[in-house]
Amino acid sequence: MSKLMNQQILLKSRPVGEPTESDFALVETAIPEPGEAEVLNRTIYLSLDPYMRGRMSDRESYVAPVELGEVMGGSTVSQVVKSNHPQFSEGEFVLGYDGWQSYGVTNGENLRKLDPTQLPISYALGITGMPGMTAYFSLLDIGKPKAGETVVVSAASGAVGAVVGQIAKIKGCRAVGIAGSDEKCDYVVKELGFDACINRKTQDLSSALKAACPNGIDVYVDHTAGAILEAVLQHINLGARIPLVGLISQYNAERLPPGPNLMPLLVKRALIKGFLVGDYQERRAEFISDMSQWLQADKLKYKEDVVKGLKNAPHAFIGLLQGENFGKLVIQVGDHSTKD
Amino acid sequence: MSKLMNQQILLKSRPVGEPTESDFALVETAIPEPGEAEVLNRTIYLSLDPYMRGRMSDRESYVAPVELGEVMGGSTVSQVVKSNHPQFSEGEFVLGYDGWQSYGVTNGENLRKLDPTQLPISYALGITGMPGMTAYFSLLDIGKPKAGETVVVSAASGAVGAVVGQIAKIKGCRAVGIAGSDEKCDYVVKELGFDACINRKTQDLSSALKAACPNGIDVYVDHTAGAILEAVLQHINLGARIPLVGLISQYNAERLPPGPNLMPLLVKRALIKGFLVGDYQERRAEFISDMSQWLQADKLKYKEDVVKGLKNAPHAFIGLLQGENFGKLVIQVGDHSTKD
Repeated sequence: MSKLMNQQILLKSRPVGEPTESDFALVETAIPEPGEAEVLNRTIYLSLDPYMRGRMSDRESYVAPVELGEVMGGSTVSQVVKSNHPQFSEGEFVLGYDGWQSYGVTNGENLRKLDPTQLPISYALGITGMPGMTAYFSLLDIGKPKAGETVVVSAASGAVGAVVGQIAKIKGCRAVGIAGSDEKCDYVVKELGFDACINRKTQDLSSALKAACPNGIDVYVDHTAGAILEAVLQHINLGARIPLVGLISQYNAERLPPGPNLMPLLVKRALIKGFLVGDYQERRAEFISDMSQWLQADKLKYKEDVVKGLKNAPHAFIGLLQGENFGKLVIQVGDHSTKD
Repeated sequence: MSKLMNQQILLKSRPVGEPTESDFALVETAIPEPGEAEVLNRTIYLSLDPYMRGRMSDRESYVAPVELGEVMGGSTVSQVVKSNHPQFSEGEFVLGYDGWQSYGVTNGENLRKLDPTQLPISYALGITGMPGMTAYFSLLDIGKPKAGETVVVSAASGAVGAVVGQIAKIKGCRAVGIAGSDEKCDYVVKELGFDACINRKTQDLSSALKAACPNGIDVYVDHTAGAILEAVLQHINLGARIPLVGLISQYNAERLPPGPNLMPLLVKRALIKGFLVGDYQERRAEFISDMSQWLQADKLKYKEDVVKGLKNAPHAFIGLLQGENFGKLVIQVGDHSTKD
């Protein structure tokens, strides 16, 4: 397809259960012209995240649905190619929400400039962006881990989980991950420094958790709900804290499945609390300050799973819900040519 | 049976599902003699509470199991009939944990004196005892209701629920009860001053909650789990708080049933937290201070369901789990003859 056109991926139909590629349509339209005080961005990276499944449905969720025939929404890292906005100039790199397309026009309101000399610009979609912030505040603000406690996280090699475990280690905790392959578990333990990792596909969750958490579980950052949460609840300690960050196991479900029996919450006087990163925007400075320091001190490692080509976004997204990505999933939509 | 013998109800077998009277045995033994520094109490009132179902099972619960052949445990209000303990004298009224029997011997450790001129002595088993304290701290410490918010409570005419709703009113909230009969609902609204009450047996829970809580639900003190919790979750507000105080709906279950889908917690950033009154013993003074003041100011009403005769305890307990009691259930085991 021509580089002089805007490639867009539209939501063609609402997925029933698991999304299929036929729920999406790739179209080409003219590259839009920015109006007065508007900015035209060329997308370099598009973030793919599990919450997007909610935007494909029209049932109640924590995100608004994308209308049929509209461009799928999503966070993007872009380069400004034309600006009628006093605060943005051609060539600058920006974090925005242009969605699944190769060009986007915005009024600059939710655009944030990125400095490519500090960190790779794609990090703004991951470790220093929404997923990193989700990890940081869910763990620290709801989980409140104390040194010596045990922190468990599911989807441990993913964009959020990897950060949860590494911050848990920084805070002096035992970090135990749950991931979907031996390769991911190896990475989580050997590269990220978790104390242990459980392969949820080959190990019995409850007995593996018992072995990996000899002192029980104090904090569980839950991305999945379902069987993993159920197993974790069997091993929680008195006063355990469970930030509920996602329910990936049921995002494709047509009917919401039942949840875990809550007796362990009563027995252990534990808490489960829903978490949405949007509630923490005003505390972003704390997050950036800590993360920058930890990244500079090499206390945090970060792995991206970069898929090239916007047209591959539907396939990659379907795989994301099945745990096929390895690291933070981003689509490289355009070339990354910095000025320096 | 003779008044000169000790009547005891023993746990004969562990109930499978719903307890039956044959799980208990009424026996007569000699009235025990208090040893050195011990106290012999004559039981006047025995408290029956849902948590006792947990003590009849040997699976993990928040209470230790009673051994087979042992006297069932339970809180009691008694009169000291013989004392070798320097701090207790014959004729005094005491709150203790002598269990399902007409006489008990203790070392005085967990015995608390009651002043019969202040409040009826049976109140120490209810509104100023464990159930009242459960209501007080679960609502105020976890629920944290603010004036103008809506507080919902299940088992609303029961020992805990009635107090939850009345304190909610004192705190300026809308109080909505859920109870098992029109008679109970009438009582809850007309006598206790709740704003509304839903008959869970005749009304559709979700639509009735919607109608009774036009501004949504901010606090739900949950005694039941099961279908009521599921329905409540459909109507919670942003930041709702749900103290989980009991799971009556499943106390008779042989296998723990699944719980509610937790998506609403995420959508509403709400919390569910397990509560056990035992954790609040050191804050008892706060509770007694507020409750005494409210009782004296006639801001709290209290209803007891008094069943006469220890031998009727098993039948009454079975009914308690089915919601057949109306008000705080106590067994009158012995005569209540105060000195004055």
